[in-house]
Amino acid sequence: MAGPGPRPEPVLDPIWVSMRRDAREWLDREPALAGLLHGAVLDRVDFEEALGCLLAIRLEGPGVDRLLLSRMFDEAVRGDAWIVEASRADISATHERDPACTSYLEPFILFKGYQALQAHRIAHSLWHGGRRIMACYLQSRASAVFGVDIHPAARIGKGLMIDHATGVVIGETAVIGEGVSLLHGVTLGGTGKERGDRHPKIGAGTMIGANASILGNISIGCCCKIGAGSVVLTDVPDNTTYAGVPAREVGTIGGEDWPALSMNQEF
Amino acid sequence: MAGPGPRPEPVLDPIWVSMRRDAREWLDREPALAGLLHGAVLDRVDFEEALGCLLAIRLEGPGVDRLLLSRMFDEAVRGDAWIVEASRADISATHERDPACTSYLEPFILFKGYQALQAHRIAHSLWHGGRRIMACYLQSRASAVFGVDIHPAARIGKGLMIDHATGVVIGETAVIGEGVSLLHGVTLGGTGKERGDRHPKIGAGTMIGANASILGNISIGCCCKIGAGSVVLTDVPDNTTYAGVPAREVGTIGGEDWPALSMNQEF
Amino acid sequence: MAGPGPRPEPVLDPIWVSMRRDAREWLDREPALAGLLHGAVLDRVDFEEALGCLLAIRLEGPGVDRLLLSRMFDEAVRGDAWIVEASRADISATHERDPACTSYLEPFILFKGYQALQAHRIAHSLWHGGRRIMACYLQSRASAVFGVDIHPAARIGKGLMIDHATGVVIGETAVIGEGVSLLHGVTLGGTGKERGDRHPKIGAGTMIGANASILGNISIGCCCKIGAGSVVLTDVPDNTTYAGVPAREVGTIGGEDWPALSMNQEF
Amino acid sequence: MAGPGPRPEPVLDPIWVSMRRDAREWLDREPALAGLLHGAVLDRVDFEEALGCLLAIRLEGPGVDRLLLSRMFDEAVRGDAWIVEASRADISATHERDPACTSYLEPFILFKGYQALQAHRIAHSLWHGGRRIMACYLQSRASAVFGVDIHPAARIGKGLMIDHATGVVIGETAVIGEGVSLLHGVTLGGTGKERGDRHPKIGAGTMIGANASILGNISIGCCCKIGAGSVVLTDVPDNTTYAGVPAREVGTIGGEDWPALSMNQEF
Amino acid sequence: MAGPGPRPEPVLDPIWVSMRRDAREWLDREPALAGLLHGAVLDRVDFEEALGCLLAIRLEGPGVDRLLLSRMFDEAVRGDAWIVEASRADISATHERDPACTSYLEPFILFKGYQALQAHRIAHSLWHGGRRIMACYLQSRASAVFGVDIHPAARIGKGLMIDHATGVVIGETAVIGEGVSLLHGVTLGGTGKERGDRHPKIGAGTMIGANASILGNISIGCCCKIGAGSVVLTDVPDNTTYAGVPAREVGTIGGEDWPALSMNQEF
Amino acid sequence: MAGPGPRPEPVLDPIWVSMRRDAREWLDREPALAGLLHGAVLDRVDFEEALGCLLAIRLEGPGVDRLLLSRMFDEAVRGDAWIVEASRADISATHERDPACTSYLEPFILFKGYQALQAHRIAHSLWHGGRRIMACYLQSRASAVFGVDIHPAARIGKGLMIDHATGVVIGETAVIGEGVSLLHGVTLGGTGKERGDRHPKIGAGTMIGANASILGNISIGCCCKIGAGSVVLTDVPDNTTYAGVPAREVGTIGGEDWPALSMNQEF
Repeated sequence: MAGPGPRPEPVLDPIWVSMRRDAREWLDREPALAGLLHGAVLDRVDFEEALGCLLAIRLEGPGVDRLLLSRMFDEAVRGDAWIVEASRADISATHERDPACTSYLEPFILFKGYQALQAHRIAHSLWHGGRRIMACYLQSRASAVFGVDIHPAARIGKGLMIDHATGVVIGETAVIGEGVSLLHGVTLGGTGKERGDRHPKIGAGTMIGANASILGNISIGCCCKIGAGSVVLTDVPDNTTYAGVPAREVGTIGGEDWPALSMNQEF
Repeated sequence: MAGPGPRPEPVLDPIWVSMRRDAREWLDREPALAGLLHGAVLDRVDFEEALGCLLAIRLEGPGVDRLLLSRMFDEAVRGDAWIVEASRADISATHERDPACTSYLEPFILFKGYQALQAHRIAHSLWHGGRRIMACYLQSRASAVFGVDIHPAARIGKGLMIDHATGVVIGETAVIGEGVSLLHGVTLGGTGKERGDRHPKIGAGTMIGANASILGNISIGCCCKIGAGSVVLTDVPDNTTYAGVPAREVGTIGGEDWPALSMNQEF
Repeated sequence: MAGPGPRPEPVLDPIWVSMRRDAREWLDREPALAGLLHGAVLDRVDFEEALGCLLAIRLEGPGVDRLLLSRMFDEAVRGDAWIVEASRADISATHERDPACTSYLEPFILFKGYQALQAHRIAHSLWHGGRRIMACYLQSRASAVFGVDIHPAARIGKGLMIDHATGVVIGETAVIGEGVSLLHGVTLGGTGKERGDRHPKIGAGTMIGANASILGNISIGCCCKIGAGSVVLTDVPDNTTYAGVPAREVGTIGGEDWPALSMNQEF
Repeated sequence: MAGPGPRPEPVLDPIWVSMRRDAREWLDREPALAGLLHGAVLDRVDFEEALGCLLAIRLEGPGVDRLLLSRMFDEAVRGDAWIVEASRADISATHERDPACTSYLEPFILFKGYQALQAHRIAHSLWHGGRRIMACYLQSRASAVFGVDIHPAARIGKGLMIDHATGVVIGETAVIGEGVSLLHGVTLGGTGKERGDRHPKIGAGTMIGANASILGNISIGCCCKIGAGSVVLTDVPDNTTYAGVPAREVGTIGGEDWPALSMNQEF
Repeated sequence: MAGPGPRPEPVLDPIWVSMRRDAREWLDREPALAGLLHGAVLDRVDFEEALGCLLAIRLEGPGVDRLLLSRMFDEAVRGDAWIVEASRADISATHERDPACTSYLEPFILFKGYQALQAHRIAHSLWHGGRRIMACYLQSRASAVFGVDIHPAARIGKGLMIDHATGVVIGETAVIGEGVSLLHGVTLGGTGKERGDRHPKIGAGTMIGANASILGNISIGCCCKIGAGSVVLTDVPDNTTYAGVPAREVGTIGGEDWPALSMNQEF
Repeated sequence: MAGPGPRPEPVLDPIWVSMRRDAREWLDREPALAGLLHGAVLDRVDFEEALGCLLAIRLEGPGVDRLLLSRMFDEAVRGDAWIVEASRADISATHERDPACTSYLEPFILFKGYQALQAHRIAHSLWHGGRRIMACYLQSRASAVFGVDIHPAARIGKGLMIDHATGVVIGETAVIGEGVSLLHGVTLGGTGKERGDRHPKIGAGTMIGANASILGNISIGCCCKIGAGSVVLTDVPDNTTYAGVPAREVGTIGGEDWPALSMNQEF
């Protein structure tokens, strides 16, 4: 039986340590958030348990209780090292790139883009574990709760930031490289003609602006920038900026620039 | 008094029969969804009751309980044959056109586009039955819950598919023909100048791409395609593709092609 | 101890008087909304209490109870005359400009654009009162509940209407003048390069169409019109219409016209 | 489709008419109870629907939703004329005998003794319709919610009043005649020796005082009075008062006196 | 606008200061109770607000929300100095007399006897303020939630302890002196014959044992002891012990002994 | 990652196997209970997990979520072999002794006496693990939810049945031997004079009838029977029947008889 008092502090996980330190500081400043901060972070053993509980509470729905989801998420997170690695990379990505974000705690607790992405990471793991129905159920819940609709089969690299997030749609055969940034309203859509490979492939380090639509089995290169509101129907080479409806090349990206990091929306 | 055990299986309604069969298969594969599957399908007498209960649970809000809504929806669905006919055509439309959808059960249980549309069909019936306040209340709840804002007075033909659905807005005097497909973020908006007929009319078989805005009392023809992200301010003749901001003709549609069915997003 | 029976009617506040009168009329026509109408309006002492309770019920979340929020909102609303003034100007703006809106009660109870904006007004007041964490928590809840993401530091003039609202994003250093209208999907986004002043400034009386993105520290003049789906990357002079991706001048606005009022979406 | 506005008033059911009239009067005096009064009475079509909804809301539990219960209760109440007759006799009994009760509305909305008894009447009907598992589930819920544990097989005559109700236990083979009154804490318990007929039989018009235990397959006559705190292990003849541990005859009841009506607790 | 961080500590109210100190100590030892401790004590301004919120959360029910109750309770508690005085005396009484109770925080947060009594104190105040319907509603909720049924008109002196509490029933014209102790299952019942004064009067300092029933308009003296399971039908003089069914004198109480304080159950 | 489909059936635990078999049979007969049966039994890995989840759902309260409780209960149940052993003995005891109980599933899912006892077993383990505050919190929740108030320090042998359960109170220093049966309303109360050892000790195999009070640090022997409504103030030798207020010997028990098993309430 665990002894009384607070749980011992884990010491080897810098993101978790930072989150707990910030949670205690937030608690000092806003005791009214005690229930939230304890439930999401301070009463949890480690990052993995915290993530599973947070998502279970957000995603539970009629007939599917948080207890059941939390056990499933726990198994999924602990059974798939990739989820853990990616979810940490995602939180770091948001922390680094969002000028309004000053801690790891904010994306974890407050940003629905981060939370929706983690729901996808678990759904993706279930999908490949043969549990397609449950994976689609999680997709549906995330769409209802966050307004973010990511097909469980989509392959998404580590370190994705989905900023603001409302209205993002990512299709079944889409592939996203590492270190990409998406803004709200981005669509990685299919062409509908066929059932096969029909969604875009996005290169590493690329940034896609708000409400941009990338349609069909096309390739967006690495370190590209897609302007807000653009509609991209053709391949985009590395290190270029595309914009317009339909999108055309409007510039190039300097070799040292990683648009997903600099997040410069101008074109 | 009804006897013990499961209710007798209805045999004449192929969609309902298929949904129940799939629900049982899902249950075998994912017993964790038992509460959902029983509550939404397996414990229900027929499609009509199932639809009313599903929507009541999704749309209930502070001060307006699911019991009350479910009785109202039951009356509405059973009292208006059009709703029943249209809601079956809508579910078939989604089943046929969405390559990621392999059953009638998925749109019914998982797709908020389908659910939001059915909430509209009931609100529309209430609106024309003189219950405008209640109709607007349902519009408001659907906007809050699904992120889909359809004015109850809008007239929508059978067999509409709203794919992904977040951000769809359809105005008061909009008219949509049969067999249309809309993607997420589509706006059928007014011009704001007048209170009268001020929203678009969409022809049968037309597909409108993601985040496209159709503005004003204009006519989009039958079997047209409106490109993603377009802004349409003028009439569009039958069998043409329009795209751009503002949208211009960018192609024509072959006679056998029904864009809402083929769902080809390219232009 | 207050005596039995209904509370005395306040007589000096025309918006509140009108809301109560309409609530009673709605109640006569739709008794099924009794719980909603009493909870939101008829059981409340005045507009201020009603607003605080309404938002508390909408924004409560895991670990943060409506009781706690309602007391905080009450203090905020009563302690900051600006909130009260602005929230009344906002309700009037919606009432005047939305052709589908015929009462003050509708925006208050039914329109998530209005509700999300009031959540921001309180968050803004908390932000400037030094309670940044709580302000960001409210931003996060409003993003989850309404699909509207407004940074608490954004400065928003009185009489804003946010129509339909899903997908609106307003950044940290954005400034909006008085009497502006925004449609759903509008982004007032940053350029990401710097942490400093990096978001748009919108002049009084301007209207921004659905899904338009205004990016960077640029100035949109007074009484401008920004077309739906546009992406604006440059300053826009007073009384002009901009549209396109990227947006260019496509017309001018007559001196007597206030686009935010006339809400004409054409360009 | 039902027209707008309030439902037409049923005119032939005096208890229901009285309940609705009182509900409106209560509403005038305590508008804060609007949600309760509308949900339980004013939004309901008739006494039968009102009863089913009231019980569904009180008895729902983890995994068993009020929608499901309300449909089952509706069927049960409408399919078994005895329930309707008995539930009206029970409400009249409470109205007549409880000096603190001045309306039919009070027992219906406020008295858990009445509500628990109606839950039993439905469970009893299910039990005899072959649905023993569901009947036992309702017994379990009523025990959890009201603290009243009545086996579904117990046979209870019309016009029972259970005053205050906490702690009442009635066993499987107990039989209660018409017009009986029980106070809180009363046990009609078994002897445990056998599985067969092992619980008391209570004659019409008898009153059993608080915390009295009647144990075994014994007969309590008509128009008897059992003193509070008594333990009865033997038959009790008609028109007598028994009291003590174990109970002995302590008086007789005059021929015109019906102890269940006069509710005189003295002995 | 209130500044950031924790509220200032009130210094003049020793019970409240003690409760807050204990709440912080409990929080250190059991962080899992953070939501409870903050919600009930640490986020509250003073004892009065804390009491109103605690009861609102416990007593809310279908159609009657905690927000509404909390405002009503706040008004009641702040408007009736007697409630405040009595509720503090009650908490002190429990703290002094229950050997298993070592703080003021325990009765406040954990003991349903204390909570049910405070619900009565507010209901009593409403009853005498002319709000009899609301008072009866609170009685009904307390009976459902705590299993304690106290008529709002009953007059109860300060410093009552109701230990364990399940099954306690106190009638309309009952009067309880100061400093009394009741155990669970105690009934102060009527004789049913008349509508008038028909319930017991209990003298100060008296203790009534578990499951005892005192019936009719009789007087129990000061500093008496009523044995567990007794049924009292006659007056009981000061400083005597009564027990049995029916109860008879079985002993006397020494002059310095206050049975309600010493809580000796033996007789 | 666990594969799709139902979990493998554990084969070595006959009680759990029986519960699962019965749950599936119940499900066939009453599909409306699907949510309950899956949530409590069919979706759970083993008896231990099922017990923790069931109690977490029943005992959660304001500010203390089921997720948190379920993890705590899981740790407690898995960390203390005594709990597991006792909770199985308790379920067997109810199954054997209650003539109305025909399965292990009924006590587990439907009987609050069993559920309240298991809450105590966990609270007792926490108490001895030094977590007294949490233990008292669980006691408080069980008192609120089940109407059963057992001090966490009370020592209770295996194989206890608490039949009907409402109103049971067991004090801090009470000790109950193995194989005891208690009916509802039983009090094992203190004498209040001292803080030390002040509650009864109950011998193995004893049965205590409904509403009986055993008061003070006295010994009730093995295989005794205490009549319903009795008040016991003195030691009771083995194999005797005591009854009355105060209780006196009224019979002896034959050597082969185990009153807790035969459950004969007569004396």
